[in-house]
Amino acid sequence: MSSAYANRYLGAAEHLPLARSIYAEMRKYPIISPHGHVDAAMILANKNFTDPVSLLLSPDHYILRMLHSQGVTYESLAANSSEDNWKVLAANWKLFRSTPSRIWFQEILATLFDVSEILAPDNAMKIYNQINEKLAGPEFKPQQLFKRFNIELLATTDATDDSLDAHIKLSQIDLDGRVIPTFRPDGVSDPERPDWKTNLAALGARYGIEITTYANLLAALRKARAHFKDNGATATDHGVLSARTLKLSSSETEVLFTKAFSGTATQSEISDFRAAMLFEHALMAADDGLVMQIHPGSLRNYDAQIYADFGADKGFDIPIATTYTRELHPMLNAVGKHPNFKAVLFTLDESAYSRELAPLAGAYPGLRLGPPWWFHDSL
Amino acid sequence: MSSAYANRYLGAAEHLPLARSIYAEMRKYPIISPHGHVDAAMILANKNFTDPVSLLLSPDHYILRMLHSQGVTYESLAANSSEDNWKVLAANWKLFRSTPSRIWFQEILATLFDVSEILAPDNAMKIYNQINEKLAGPEFKPQQLFKRFNIELLATTDATDDSLDAHIKLSQIDLDGRVIPTFRPDGVSDPERPDWKTNLAALGARYGIEITTYANLLAALRKARAHFKDNGATATDHGVLSARTLKLSSSETEVLFTKAFSGTATQSEISDFRAAMLFEHALMAADDGLVMQIHPGSLRNYDAQIYADFGADKGFDIPIATTYTRELHPMLNAVGKHPNFKAVLFTLDESAYSRELAPLAGAYPGLRLGPPWWFHDSL
Amino acid sequence: MSSAYANRYLGAAEHLPLARSIYAEMRKYPIISPHGHVDAAMILANKNFTDPVSLLLSPDHYILRMLHSQGVTYESLAANSSEDNWKVLAANWKLFRSTPSRIWFQEILATLFDVSEILAPDNAMKIYNQINEKLAGPEFKPQQLFKRFNIELLATTDATDDSLDAHIKLSQIDLDGRVIPTFRPDGVSDPERPDWKTNLAALGARYGIEITTYANLLAALRKARAHFKDNGATATDHGVLSARTLKLSSSETEVLFTKAFSGTATQSEISDFRAAMLFEHALMAADDGLVMQIHPGSLRNYDAQIYADFGADKGFDIPIATTYTRELHPMLNAVGKHPNFKAVLFTLDESAYSRELAPLAGAYPGLRLGPPWWFHDSL
Repeated sequence: MSSAYANRYLGAAEHLPLARSIYAEMRKYPIISPHGHVDAAMILANKNFTDPVSLLLSPDHYILRMLHSQGVTYESLAANSSEDNWKVLAANWKLFRSTPSRIWFQEILATLFDVSEILAPDNAMKIYNQINEKLAGPEFKPQQLFKRFNIELLATTDATDDSLDAHIKLSQIDLDGRVIPTFRPDGVSDPERPDWKTNLAALGARYGIEITTYANLLAALRKARAHFKDNGATATDHGVLSARTLKLSSSETEVLFTKAFSGTATQSEISDFRAAMLFEHALMAADDGLVMQIHPGSLRNYDAQIYADFGADKGFDIPIATTYTRELHPMLNAVGKHPNFKAVLFTLDESAYSRELAPLAGAYPGLRLGPPWWFHDSL
Repeated sequence: MSSAYANRYLGAAEHLPLARSIYAEMRKYPIISPHGHVDAAMILANKNFTDPVSLLLSPDHYILRMLHSQGVTYESLAANSSEDNWKVLAANWKLFRSTPSRIWFQEILATLFDVSEILAPDNAMKIYNQINEKLAGPEFKPQQLFKRFNIELLATTDATDDSLDAHIKLSQIDLDGRVIPTFRPDGVSDPERPDWKTNLAALGARYGIEITTYANLLAALRKARAHFKDNGATATDHGVLSARTLKLSSSETEVLFTKAFSGTATQSEISDFRAAMLFEHALMAADDGLVMQIHPGSLRNYDAQIYADFGADKGFDIPIATTYTRELHPMLNAVGKHPNFKAVLFTLDESAYSRELAPLAGAYPGLRLGPPWWFHDSL
Repeated sequence: MSSAYANRYLGAAEHLPLARSIYAEMRKYPIISPHGHVDAAMILANKNFTDPVSLLLSPDHYILRMLHSQGVTYESLAANSSEDNWKVLAANWKLFRSTPSRIWFQEILATLFDVSEILAPDNAMKIYNQINEKLAGPEFKPQQLFKRFNIELLATTDATDDSLDAHIKLSQIDLDGRVIPTFRPDGVSDPERPDWKTNLAALGARYGIEITTYANLLAALRKARAHFKDNGATATDHGVLSARTLKLSSSETEVLFTKAFSGTATQSEISDFRAAMLFEHALMAADDGLVMQIHPGSLRNYDAQIYADFGADKGFDIPIATTYTRELHPMLNAVGKHPNFKAVLFTLDESAYSRELAPLAGAYPGLRLGPPWWFHDSL
C-alpha cells in the first residue's frame, strides 16, 4: 500500500503524524454497527454474491439516484444485463467526483477486490471480471466476510412480525460476533400505508392476538418487543414523517383505531394516530429499555410511478422541513427524565441542529443525536 | 492596469497563478445572460443614458435599500437633483464596505469609466462629471455597449401580452449577439394583484381571446408562449410567493377562475389558483420545452406606503421561509421525468439547499438549481 | 499574568500583535450593558454573596442544564449542601470542555478570585474555600464590584408594576455608573400565563387603574412606561413565543380582552391577543422612544415537572422554528419608518438571519439585529 494511499482522507500534511496515530489506534477496534439494513437471512444462507452489479449497484440508492438525475432511467437499468449496467456506471462515474459515494465505492474496490484504479469506461470490464472472480471464492461468502471485517455486533432492521428465526440460527453459528435484530414498527404504525392491515394481521398471527382494537395492537407490540429483546435487540427504529407525539386517553386511541381500521379516518386523525403510536413506543421504551431511534422528516416514495414500478426505497425519499421542540414535548414530558429511557434523534434538516436538537439533548439525559443521515453523509 | 488590480478577487497569493490562468481562459468566452431585466425597447431606441444617477443609482434596489435603512428616505431622493443624489451616495459610500454592491459599482467605474478611485465626498463631483461626459459619447449608446461587452445572448423578461416588437426589430440589427424575450406570466397568474384583470384583458386583446374562463386563459397563454418561442424565447420566469403546485380537474379550475374573476375567492382559493397556474405552466413547459425559472419565497411590496408612492420593486421585497418538497410534488409527479421538461429552482432560503433542493435535483433529471439570488449574491 | 494567558482567545500567532492592540484599545472603555437580569435591589442591599455555589452555579441555567443532561438531577442538587454541589460541579467539569460556559467560569475564577487552575475533583475544595474567603471581604460587595468593573451603565429587567424604588435609591448612590430599569411587559401580555390576572391587578394597583378593559390596560401601560422612562429606562423587553404582530380596531381588542379575562378565549384568540399587545407596544415605542427588544422563539418552561418544582427559567426553555417577515409586517408598516421607532430583533433560529432578519434590517432604519442569544452564545 503506497504511502499516499495510506494517508488518504487524513488531512493536511502538518497534522498527518497525529492523524495517523489516532487512526492506527482506532482501527484496532472491532466494528459495532448499531443501525443498518443487512438481511440476517442472507448471512445465514451464506451464498456467494452473484455479480458486482447486484452487490454494489442495485441496492445503492445513492448511486441509482445520481444516475437517474443525469438521465439514466430505472427502466433502462432494469432491462440491461449486469455487464451493461456496469458499463453504464463506468461511463457516468465522472459524475460522482467529490461525492461520498465515490469514496466508499473505490474504497470497497481497493480494500476488498485489489482494484486500485478509478473506474472508467476503458477498465470497466477488467474490473468487473476481477470482482466477479473474487466473488466466487469461499472467502467472499457473507459469513467469511463478517469474520474478516472484525464485526463485534451488527444490528439488522426487522418487521414486527419477524420470527427472528434467522437471528436465532445465526446466534448458534460461530461468527466471532453477533447479529442482532432491531424492532421497526413502521409497517403497523401508519394507517396510510397500503400494507397496514396486512402488517397488522401478520403481527397478530405471529402472537395469537386478533388486532381489531388499539389495546390489542399494544398487547401484540409488547409481546413482539419482548421477543426481539429476548433475541438480542437493543433498539427500535422509527421512520416517521413527523416527530410528532401525542398523549391520548385509551378511549381516544380506541376511537382513532376504529376510524383508521374502517378507513374513515381524516388526514388529521391519521396524523394523530401516528403521533399516538410514537408516544406509546416511548412509554414502552421506558419500560423495556429498548433505545428508540427516531428518523423523521423524509417524504417517502416521492415519485409515484417509480414506487409503483420499482418499489420502496427506490422512489426518491425526499426530506421536508422538520421540527422537534413541540413535536417531542408530550413524549419528553412523559418519559424524558425516566432513567430507563433512551432515544436517538436523527435529522435531514440541518437547521434543526442548533435550533432544537442540541438544546433538547442538552437538557434531557435520555436523548442522543444521531450521526449525519443520507444527504448529510460525508467522509 | 496594476498587478494588484488585475489580481483582485482572485484569492490567496499561493493560488494566484492557477486562479489567473483559469480566469484568463474564462474571460475569452462571450456573455450568455439567461435571466435579466434589461428593457429590449431601450436597446432598440439606442439613446445615450442621461446621467450617472439614473443609470447607476435609481434602478439599483440593493443600493437604494441600503441607503434607506440608514435613514436616506426615498422622498428625499425623489426631491433631489441628480447631482445631489450622487453626493448623498458618496457621503454614504462607506456603508457599502464589504458588500457585493460596492464591488460591482466600483468595477463598473473602473472598467467602463476609467475611474480607479473609491467614491468619496471629496471626489464625488469629479467622478460624476467624468461619467457624465463619457455617457454622452457614441460608444456609450446601448447597442455599442452591447457589442463591446461581447454578449452572445441576453434574455429580457416580458409580460404575456408583449408584442415583442422590440425584440423582432432588434433581431434585424447587427449586435454580434441576440436579445431574446422571457415569458413572465406573473401578472395574469395571481388574482390578488390589483392589475390582474387589466393584464388578463391585455393578454386576451393581444391574441383575440376573451378571457372569461380558465380554458380561455390557457388558450391565450398557449398562443402567447408560442409567440415568445417563435421569437427566440427559451424560458419562462415565475416569481411566485410559494412554490406550491396543484393538480385539479378542469371543472375545479373553472370554478376557481369564476370565483377569482368575480372577486369572491377566499385566501385559500386564491392560493389554489396560483398553485394550479404554476402546475399548468409545468404541463405547457413539458409540451413546448420552454425552461421554467421558479423564483419563490419573496413577499413583494412589503412596505405599503413605499409601494404606493414609488411602485413595484422599490417596496422592499422580503424573503419568507420557503419549502419545496411537498409544493413541487404534484408538478414533479406529472412532468418531472418528462424528457422535454426543464425547471430551474431558485431560493432565498438557504436552509432549503441541503434539505430539499439538492435532494430533488439529485433525483429528477429536469431540475437545475439556480445561482444565488438577491441576499445571497456575492462575489 | 503569563503571556500565554494574556493572549488567550486572541487568535492565531500571526495576528497576535494586531489583536492585542485592538484589545488593549477596547478594554479601556467602560462596560455599557443594555440588557441583563441583575436585581437592582441586590445592588442596593449591598450584602456579601453567601458562597460560591449560590453565586456561580445556582443561577446559571447553562451550567445547570448541562449537568442535568448528564444525569445530575435538580432534586439531588436541591438536597445537597453547597460544598457537595461544588464537588459535583468539579467532578463533571470535564463535560464543559470547549463550551463558552467553561471559558466564562474559569475567566471569573482567574480575574476575580486569583484561581488559575482548571476546576477538578482534587482542587475543588481548595478553590471553594479560596472563593468563599474572598467573597466575605468588603471589596466583594456588589457596589464595590460594580465600581471595580468600570460599569458606565447597567440595565436591569423589571415587571410593569415595579415601583423602581431600588433604582431610585441607587441613583442617589455614587457608583461611578448608572443602574437603569428595562420595562418587561410579558407578565401582562400573555393570558395563558397562570399569573396573568395577578400581574394585571398589580399593575392596576400601582397606577390606580382597574384593568378590566383593554383600554384601561393600555392606559396603565402608558403610565408605567412613562414611570420607567422618568427613571432612566431606555428600552422595553419582549420575551414572546412568536414575533407575530396584529393591528386590530379598538372594538376588536376589547372583545379579545373580555374573552381572555373571562377565560373563554380560544388558542387562536390568545395568540391574537399576544400579537395585538406586541403591536401596541410598537405604537407606544414610536411615541415614547423606548427601544423594543424582541426575543421570540423560545418555548418556555418546557418540562412541566421541573417548572412546577423549581420554577421559571429552570424548566428548559427550548427554541422553536421562528419567522419574522409576515409576523412583523403589521408593525413595520405602522411604525417601521417612524423616526422615533427603534427595535432590536433577536433570534434562536440561525436560519432566520440571512433569510429574514438581515433583509428586514437592511430596509427599515429603526431595526437592529441583536447579538447571539443563548445557544448561539460563544466567545
